[in-house]
Amino acid sequence: MTCNATLAEAAPGKTVLGFVGIGIMGLAMTRNLIKAGYEVVVWNRNPEKCKPLEQEGARVASSPRDVVSAATYTFAMLSDPEAALDVALRPDGVVAGISPGKGYIDVSTVDAATSRTIAAAVRSAGGGFLEAPVSGSKGPAEQGKLIFLTAGDEDLFAAVSAPLDVMGKAKFFLGPEGAGAHMKLVVNMVMGAMMTSFAEGLALADKVGLKHQDVIDVVALGAIAAPMFALKGPAMAARSYNPAFPLKHQQKDMRLALALGDEVAQPLPMAAAANSLYIAARRQGLGDMDFSAVMEAVAAQEADTKKQ
Amino acid sequence: MTCNATLAEAAPGKTVLGFVGIGIMGLAMTRNLIKAGYEVVVWNRNPEKCKPLEQEGARVASSPRDVVSAATYTFAMLSDPEAALDVALRPDGVVAGISPGKGYIDVSTVDAATSRTIAAAVRSAGGGFLEAPVSGSKGPAEQGKLIFLTAGDEDLFAAVSAPLDVMGKAKFFLGPEGAGAHMKLVVNMVMGAMMTSFAEGLALADKVGLKHQDVIDVVALGAIAAPMFALKGPAMAARSYNPAFPLKHQQKDMRLALALGDEVAQPLPMAAAANSLYIAARRQGLGDMDFSAVMEAVAAQEADTKKQ
Amino acid sequence: MTCNATLAEAAPGKTVLGFVGIGIMGLAMTRNLIKAGYEVVVWNRNPEKCKPLEQEGARVASSPRDVVSAATYTFAMLSDPEAALDVALRPDGVVAGISPGKGYIDVSTVDAATSRTIAAAVRSAGGGFLEAPVSGSKGPAEQGKLIFLTAGDEDLFAAVSAPLDVMGKAKFFLGPEGAGAHMKLVVNMVMGAMMTSFAEGLALADKVGLKHQDVIDVVALGAIAAPMFALKGPAMAARSYNPAFPLKHQQKDMRLALALGDEVAQPLPMAAAANSLYIAARRQGLGDMDFSAVMEAVAAQEADTKKQ
Amino acid sequence: MTCNATLAEAAPGKTVLGFVGIGIMGLAMTRNLIKAGYEVVVWNRNPEKCKPLEQEGARVASSPRDVVSAATYTFAMLSDPEAALDVALRPDGVVAGISPGKGYIDVSTVDAATSRTIAAAVRSAGGGFLEAPVSGSKGPAEQGKLIFLTAGDEDLFAAVSAPLDVMGKAKFFLGPEGAGAHMKLVVNMVMGAMMTSFAEGLALADKVGLKHQDVIDVVALGAIAAPMFALKGPAMAARSYNPAFPLKHQQKDMRLALALGDEVAQPLPMAAAANSLYIAARRQGLGDMDFSAVMEAVAAQEADTKKQ
Repeated sequence: MTCNATLAEAAPGKTVLGFVGIGIMGLAMTRNLIKAGYEVVVWNRNPEKCKPLEQEGARVASSPRDVVSAATYTFAMLSDPEAALDVALRPDGVVAGISPGKGYIDVSTVDAATSRTIAAAVRSAGGGFLEAPVSGSKGPAEQGKLIFLTAGDEDLFAAVSAPLDVMGKAKFFLGPEGAGAHMKLVVNMVMGAMMTSFAEGLALADKVGLKHQDVIDVVALGAIAAPMFALKGPAMAARSYNPAFPLKHQQKDMRLALALGDEVAQPLPMAAAANSLYIAARRQGLGDMDFSAVMEAVAAQEADTKKQ
Repeated sequence: MTCNATLAEAAPGKTVLGFVGIGIMGLAMTRNLIKAGYEVVVWNRNPEKCKPLEQEGARVASSPRDVVSAATYTFAMLSDPEAALDVALRPDGVVAGISPGKGYIDVSTVDAATSRTIAAAVRSAGGGFLEAPVSGSKGPAEQGKLIFLTAGDEDLFAAVSAPLDVMGKAKFFLGPEGAGAHMKLVVNMVMGAMMTSFAEGLALADKVGLKHQDVIDVVALGAIAAPMFALKGPAMAARSYNPAFPLKHQQKDMRLALALGDEVAQPLPMAAAANSLYIAARRQGLGDMDFSAVMEAVAAQEADTKKQ
Repeated sequence: MTCNATLAEAAPGKTVLGFVGIGIMGLAMTRNLIKAGYEVVVWNRNPEKCKPLEQEGARVASSPRDVVSAATYTFAMLSDPEAALDVALRPDGVVAGISPGKGYIDVSTVDAATSRTIAAAVRSAGGGFLEAPVSGSKGPAEQGKLIFLTAGDEDLFAAVSAPLDVMGKAKFFLGPEGAGAHMKLVVNMVMGAMMTSFAEGLALADKVGLKHQDVIDVVALGAIAAPMFALKGPAMAARSYNPAFPLKHQQKDMRLALALGDEVAQPLPMAAAANSLYIAARRQGLGDMDFSAVMEAVAAQEADTKKQ
Repeated sequence: MTCNATLAEAAPGKTVLGFVGIGIMGLAMTRNLIKAGYEVVVWNRNPEKCKPLEQEGARVASSPRDVVSAATYTFAMLSDPEAALDVALRPDGVVAGISPGKGYIDVSTVDAATSRTIAAAVRSAGGGFLEAPVSGSKGPAEQGKLIFLTAGDEDLFAAVSAPLDVMGKAKFFLGPEGAGAHMKLVVNMVMGAMMTSFAEGLALADKVGLKHQDVIDVVALGAIAAPMFALKGPAMAARSYNPAFPLKHQQKDMRLALALGDEVAQPLPMAAAANSLYIAARRQGLGDMDFSAVMEAVAAQEADTKKQ
């Protein structure tokens, strides 16, 4: 699970860091590394995106391989598994620049199989690999408040501890690569079931004459208070579902979590019941709305009845 | 829904308050009323329990009727629906002392039907009625941090606003009597489903090699963080279930919530799936453990498999 | 569980039988007893209904008590638990005419508690009691092809074996009174879940382009062929639900079966999932349609989507 | 969906038929074709298996291509999707021998994607394709009582109508290729849910003191009587599960049916609840037992309780 070469601790003014994938997230994360005093080399498919970082002191390389050649530790934030595999494995990609003593930290959100493929390639070139999907979006990225769910080589986790703390407020080392992806599935599965149960509570309340806002306020004061209820509740009460996390993505995560449960023989009847409701919501044409729109599958026919 | 006589606002030094039912909760609540400057008359089935309050300035009456005769507004904290009905309706009970201008506030946790019966009797004697079950136990009662879920006569709610604020940190007026009981069921139903989903998350995590404590820590940092997860999670990870809220009571609340959904034609598939798991836990002999012991129904056979 | 007096075997030309409750079912059943050579005494709340039987040789009594006084064994077919209790326990009711050596066989469909109440009263008067709900409606009653699910006194079951065989094609002795009601619940619970699963099969088939009639025909040839699928399938394919067994009654049986499972700590997740769908169908206003209308809850929003 | 060349009707004494895959099923099916007067050419990976047929008049070819070259219509019964693809697409495979006027009928049980791949290859060579999975095993194959669930080219279905009737008692044409596989999934999904509901009924009956055999007998007389209940019920009552259809295969079919529902946005809460129970049974180590062993997941902890 650990690579052979000893990995040096990353320190500002001492260690060169690489960053490939300069989108909204990558830009904010790299900026925080520069501010913290790190020397940073960057690359992006569309080099225009690297301009602002160049002005702030970053060096722009012409390929992922060149980034890795120049840096001790290279981070990557890519859009999906296909991009992650391509940037790692293409002829001028990350693996082509890896050698003993270097490490590659993929902070993209990808599935366990993708992580394992990249990990094997990086290690066969003598480097260390860390899967490190983040929890948190643009705001937390800018404020250095991301959460890193890392897995893979634990000595690389230790070596990049300082830059992770620059970019985030919390970091976990969870086990061999794949564990980060699994943790995201577990948490999203619980989140999906909680949302559906909350929608049931709101629907039942409505049917017995209680106000949605009263339920939201009472919940907010007790043992089950959760930021999600406070944030989404009022919009759900108004049956408004501006997409933050699209319902079809939540349903995909339920499906993947159920498949994982099937694989390891763990029955998940709550997730299965929730999944049926998310599929019902998709059938109602709500796949692109926020996942809180599962409310419509829970309370849908009620509206029909009122029409009669 | 409102009583006919105008109800005066309760104020310290001006309004006499009654309190029947001096147990752990009633004692703490009455003490706070005395400290706030109210003149208080009390009664308890076992008069010994009233002694400490007498020394702090309360008057002890010889029956619920005598309390109500002496006080403008009388609170009651009784152990169950049977006690609530008895104290209200016995020959020397609350209703026998009620007259226009007086109000009765039952802060016990009883079902909607019991509340409606007492409300009708109080109103037929010319008084006002407020159902006001509390959320919170001994600690919050002592600190004046209870939450009141009230329902019944809204002008009585307004009139006793000041003493409710002395005893609690929040109060809700939810509608006609019965609404307080319904709100408790709705919230407990969501809580029961959340606990079961969380147990599924822990069980799945375990099967794929993630540590329970890591799941608990990641959850605590995100959108689904809830005090209940932080409080119960570590004990569940240790498969220790010291009873705070017994599983059989949680299962009873699921059953009652499902019956309410049936009555108003609201399907509740999440609550139904959770209920099956609580019943399975009861079958395993865990009814008197904490409701977080539903973990054993979610992950139970796993243990058996390991034995093989 | 057995009564003290020895019970004589009922034989045509030798034993007088009673029958109270001459509706559609009672009329057909009594007629078969007369045809078989039994001397029969009858009573009905509305005596008009007894006229045809009088012409066929029955004696008409003026009260349930008079029937029981004249007969050795008295059968009753009443509409609901209230009628069953009234006819048994009223001053001129069944129990008033009971004495040792006589037996009372209630073929109505009532709950276990009602059966137990009547059994206790009959036994305290020295008689034997048999709960004997029937499976089958008008047609089978006329053809003597009912099925009797009996419970209570086994020696009474033996004594009335001959008249039961006249009225039915099969009879079961299931245990102490209440067992007949429980068997009906168990069978109806399985039936309700089967119908819902079949509806899911039809809905999925439709979505992938298979014809409902093909599904019905394939099912009819295999291991899961059941008369219910052959009978209801074509109507379901046409989304036509003429009530034979109303959906609200099927849902009530699901509710009662789930309550029984709760009582004995048997989780019933399939019945619970089916129950949610029957409640959803009730919410759609389908409670008075045939229970196969649960199809609309399974496939409902599909229609909405097609409208878009 | 139809091939271009006109297809001649297969008739004994006139049409040469091919059969590739001579296992238990293929042997019995081919034998029936020979008996009916057809000239038959056969091939099997292990040529030993063809010996008995040769003695009965069949010609043995040296490759699938040679069978197809010699025959107008060729049937195939292969063990799994991999074998089906290999026999069709290998250099000396079925497609290499196809030309306009010929047809290929794959009676193996494969998934929709495999059927579509083979169909495309056969058609591009000018031939017709029919997917025709069978329902029924050795006995029905020998007696010519199989059921064919066909899909693909409807004119090929018409052309091979006579030989299908020789081998089977019923045949369905269900639509474009893939429809046969879908029909099997739909029927197996309903079967899996029925079995689980039946197990719930037996478990509940047991808990309330009813005998399993009484439940089985009552069910057998009513609207939900199904051959599966009569066949498996007594063994389930004895908690004996000799594998006819292994539980892990039934669970795989539930998983595939749920995936199909997900794909076409059809919620399947009954199948999802049943699937959780089959996974629980797998966790108990029952994957290789008969699928009726789901009984143990439904009633499992009961045994534990009795031990206490």
